[in-house]
Amino acid sequence: MDKKTNLPHLNFKIEAESKETRARAGLLETSHGIIETPVFMPVGTLGSVKSMSPEELSDCGTQIILGNTYHLYLRPGCDVISLFSGLHKFMNWKKPVLTDSGGFQVFSLAKLSKMAENGVTFQSHIDGSSHLLTPEKAVEIQICLNSDIMMCLDNCIAYPASRDETQKALEITARWAKRCKNTWKEKIENIGKTNRLFGIVQGGMFKDLRKISIDDITEIGFSGYAIGGLSVGEPKDIMLEIADFSLSKLPDAKPKYIMGVGTPEDLIELVGLGADMFDCVMPTRNARNGQIFTKHGKMNIYNSRFRTDTNPIEPGCTCYTCRNYSRAYLRHLFMSKELLSYRLNTIHNVHYYVNLIRKARNAICKGEFEAFRKDFYSEQDIKDKR
Amino acid sequence: MDKKTNLPHLNFKIEAESKETRARAGLLETSHGIIETPVFMPVGTLGSVKSMSPEELSDCGTQIILGNTYHLYLRPGCDVISLFSGLHKFMNWKKPVLTDSGGFQVFSLAKLSKMAENGVTFQSHIDGSSHLLTPEKAVEIQICLNSDIMMCLDNCIAYPASRDETQKALEITARWAKRCKNTWKEKIENIGKTNRLFGIVQGGMFKDLRKISIDDITEIGFSGYAIGGLSVGEPKDIMLEIADFSLSKLPDAKPKYIMGVGTPEDLIELVGLGADMFDCVMPTRNARNGQIFTKHGKMNIYNSRFRTDTNPIEPGCTCYTCRNYSRAYLRHLFMSKELLSYRLNTIHNVHYYVNLIRKARNAICKGEFEAFRKDFYSEQDIKDKR
Repeated sequence: MDKKTNLPHLNFKIEAESKETRARAGLLETSHGIIETPVFMPVGTLGSVKSMSPEELSDCGTQIILGNTYHLYLRPGCDVISLFSGLHKFMNWKKPVLTDSGGFQVFSLAKLSKMAENGVTFQSHIDGSSHLLTPEKAVEIQICLNSDIMMCLDNCIAYPASRDETQKALEITARWAKRCKNTWKEKIENIGKTNRLFGIVQGGMFKDLRKISIDDITEIGFSGYAIGGLSVGEPKDIMLEIADFSLSKLPDAKPKYIMGVGTPEDLIELVGLGADMFDCVMPTRNARNGQIFTKHGKMNIYNSRFRTDTNPIEPGCTCYTCRNYSRAYLRHLFMSKELLSYRLNTIHNVHYYVNLIRKARNAICKGEFEAFRKDFYSEQDIKDKR
Repeated sequence: MDKKTNLPHLNFKIEAESKETRARAGLLETSHGIIETPVFMPVGTLGSVKSMSPEELSDCGTQIILGNTYHLYLRPGCDVISLFSGLHKFMNWKKPVLTDSGGFQVFSLAKLSKMAENGVTFQSHIDGSSHLLTPEKAVEIQICLNSDIMMCLDNCIAYPASRDETQKALEITARWAKRCKNTWKEKIENIGKTNRLFGIVQGGMFKDLRKISIDDITEIGFSGYAIGGLSVGEPKDIMLEIADFSLSKLPDAKPKYIMGVGTPEDLIELVGLGADMFDCVMPTRNARNGQIFTKHGKMNIYNSRFRTDTNPIEPGCTCYTCRNYSRAYLRHLFMSKELLSYRLNTIHNVHYYVNLIRKARNAICKGEFEAFRKDFYSEQDIKDKR
């Protein structure tokens, strides 16, 4: 037991639950610190949340970031990162790291990827070199990254996919999950290390197949469960329906992670459905395209009406960007393609996402999540002269 | 008189002089603070030293930055910057700003620039719109920027240039300087404002023409004098010879500014010849191309030998980058084209340049400049296995 949190070592504890919804607030312990859930995790694909320093991430309230197994395996490679005993020291980030397994990228980014029972053979998108990624290797790479939360290798499919294709994918995902667990047991659990391994549920847009996948993956047993294969092009109502169904069937005692979703509205809905963890490139990528998130909705900073606007992006926002810079300056930097533009926009957007979920958590703890949710939508409707 | 510095208001005071060389340490007062000279001024062309925040500039020891009149006039425009009462508040920089007059850019960047006695007509490199820049307008724009140190509009010529062309350019530069001074008197001095105006000496690579230009410009009288038209493609020995000659003829009671030069070696030589102020894009631009300055010479961070190098760029360096990141990480960021790469490289290079000149100043104050200069060259010769 951990004295401070009263948590069994590396456990997950529910602190508060919403009465009207399935929203819950929890504490998830890792060897680099305790994460308050629900939590938004900024994406640091290549060992850097694009344009931001670790100090800026912390200042935004970031508790945990994502790294990408596929990308970091190809570049700089495990031999480099192992010299630093993992990603934390390599990139100077002292808090927890979650790494995805590389499954998604192998199917979406790599060239000529070829599935087999043993694993997936693919060509690097950088230099065309050939690689074999197996479930064992996916875990081994993540061990080298010293990821606090590792993900099983899964078989990601495109949308739409046939029932048959979806079923095959979830079946191999389950067999791979078993092999990932075995590798994790041998190389982590049995030697007393504390890195966690999460299972990933697939099953496409078919509820009965989602149920089969959930049964398969929970049967193997993991420290947490992720719902993969959402936000891949399906309509929003289907995404929410599948998430709703899957979240309700996953065991409540474990953290539930929705991978790669989504807009602020999506996140609020998913928190209400019981999701605990989120990652998405939207705040960072959109920032670099000049799109800013605010409590009154999205704002395109390049809009000419901001040319002479001396206000901060969002009056009252406590992020570094809003405390120090005007819309006029940010528009100028963006129009001039200044590197500082991407950074200042990213800081605001990451601060927005991280704190939106933090506020949702505070509301859950106070038993006010439903009121918070309503306020969120009313605020979004205020158009603020934009 | 200023109580703290014992300086007459907005004056320049020599604190120490080298015995073996013409190097000197001074204090230059501006309305945004006192600058210790010699000083290196990072270049913030468009209201941002590319990739760096104002806090990072300060942390590097930056005392004053440059802004660019031509660029800021075209984008965002004076109407925008005047809403912030100048560049400082627009870009959140609280220390002094020097702005060049736009002369160099009008001749090098703009399209179809056409000289006349009244001024120069040019087409914007952004949208092709036509503009007339006169000496009066150059000063007015800089007043709008609220620049602490403004520069006269000069006629910059290419290298090589004929004697005749050079003479004509220095003559019109003198007539324009007079007109700049008149505008400055009327709109600054006569209403009790404290922004300074510096004159610019031209004369190409002809010593006798340099002498004529120096006489013309000092006859008009300015708060400081800049040597323009160097580092435009001439051999290094000629650059140093012309700088040597010009610096020796300029009045010692005023700050002497060498525009747009140069390498660390150039700066050390020029400090020894009595130069007080420098600006150059080299530390910032080269950083973005992966070239790093160190006391042991230049380092290309993309070199494969740094792939597994866990050392900081320069062991012992106190910059943010060296305190927190390895060569291996910096190489990885550069190879991956991560935005953080440009920022971390720039921080180191700006810190290097600013502190090289600061150390030169300390050596002058201790009467040890010549020893410092020798040490600088011995250190540069150490190859550090690179």
